[in-house]
Amino acid sequence: MNKRKVSLYVIKRLPRYYRFLGDLLDEGIAKISSKALSERMGLTASQIRQDLNCFGGFGQQGYGYNVEMLRDEIADIIGVKKVNKVIIIGAGNVGQAICDDISFEKRGCALTGIFDRDPTLKGRIVRAGQGATHEIRAMGDLPRFCKENKPNIAVLCVPKESAMTVCDDLIELGIKSFWNFTHFDINLHYRDREDINVENVHLGDSLLTLVYNLNRNKK
Amino acid sequence: MNKRKVSLYVIKRLPRYYRFLGDLLDEGIAKISSKALSERMGLTASQIRQDLNCFGGFGQQGYGYNVEMLRDEIADIIGVKKVNKVIIIGAGNVGQAICDDISFEKRGCALTGIFDRDPTLKGRIVRAGQGATHEIRAMGDLPRFCKENKPNIAVLCVPKESAMTVCDDLIELGIKSFWNFTHFDINLHYRDREDINVENVHLGDSLLTLVYNLNRNKK
Repeated sequence: MNKRKVSLYVIKRLPRYYRFLGDLLDEGIAKISSKALSERMGLTASQIRQDLNCFGGFGQQGYGYNVEMLRDEIADIIGVKKVNKVIIIGAGNVGQAICDDISFEKRGCALTGIFDRDPTLKGRIVRAGQGATHEIRAMGDLPRFCKENKPNIAVLCVPKESAMTVCDDLIELGIKSFWNFTHFDINLHYRDREDINVENVHLGDSLLTLVYNLNRNKK
Repeated sequence: MNKRKVSLYVIKRLPRYYRFLGDLLDEGIAKISSKALSERMGLTASQIRQDLNCFGGFGQQGYGYNVEMLRDEIADIIGVKKVNKVIIIGAGNVGQAICDDISFEKRGCALTGIFDRDPTLKGRIVRAGQGATHEIRAMGDLPRFCKENKPNIAVLCVPKESAMTVCDDLIELGIKSFWNFTHFDINLHYRDREDINVENVHLGDSLLTLVYNLNRNKK
């Protein structure tokens, strides 16, 4: 395995570290050994030391990790302290669930708008967590909205059939990062564009993986 | 890398093969070479041959793959043709979005019930895709329901605080497979139970990964 590949796995684990360290802080735990952290996270202690070494290593021999400092460093590495402006495209079930349930502000993001192509939804109020609300906007308002607000992340919650067109339009409007809940493979379509970031949530694939494991696991 | 680890990656790719082959069928494509399939999927041709060889290899030299046969074989391997009975626990935004948006029946599953601990939701009708509906049931009805219907997969859409108790109760009622949308790490809690299958959908972690990549990718 080459170095680039290894670091991809570390990257995938960073949000998990961040989450577990946040839980520790909530429980009032100020320091933790790599052994104790490994037991909580189901990793080996040497794995944890290796992972964190990739980013400089924040532990002290015989003392362990300072939870707050480590979480803070990981927050910096992920970029949680910058504010990314998010728009949700598609105000169906999934779009509305994300609008209300994801704590964007805890993850370096601010939700700035939710859009739908259905004109009858325009102006409808949707919940956006902790008492906040958003008004559904028309897709036709996107160009002006993007010019004024400069969102940089789009959450794609549209049907697969329209995903490509929507995606093309958004890229045209300057958006390069996609949290993709559709079954359209954005990264394949734009495989030559290295400046485009995609994180796919293929829920159907996830369910199939469970079904596969369940069938294999039958004794 | 040991053999077990490799096959885990193959398993993770199986649902993707299944999805792409389904798209090909929808487009009326009856056969495809590993090269053409690789271009569509963004993998190398040798990767595809290797992956499919793990399960017997269904290609013919100089002919390529018969799309329908290959999809059928993968459907068998995943276990899409058996019917697993699914219940959704938690009828909030996420629970309802899954209830309405996931085509369970295409993935070897049948949705049999949706439950919530909030007694005021009992009896409320929720949409369940293609005109179907479900009536929200009370958590107190779970024991009788499980005895009569024997569901084997639970979709967990409850708050993190109650996830562990809910999970313990479900295991007590005979459910061993969990599609987990909570931030409670079921597999860590039951690490000694090899008969328990968990597929986690950590949406917050997924968003953080996007934020990380976006920050790294800034030129």
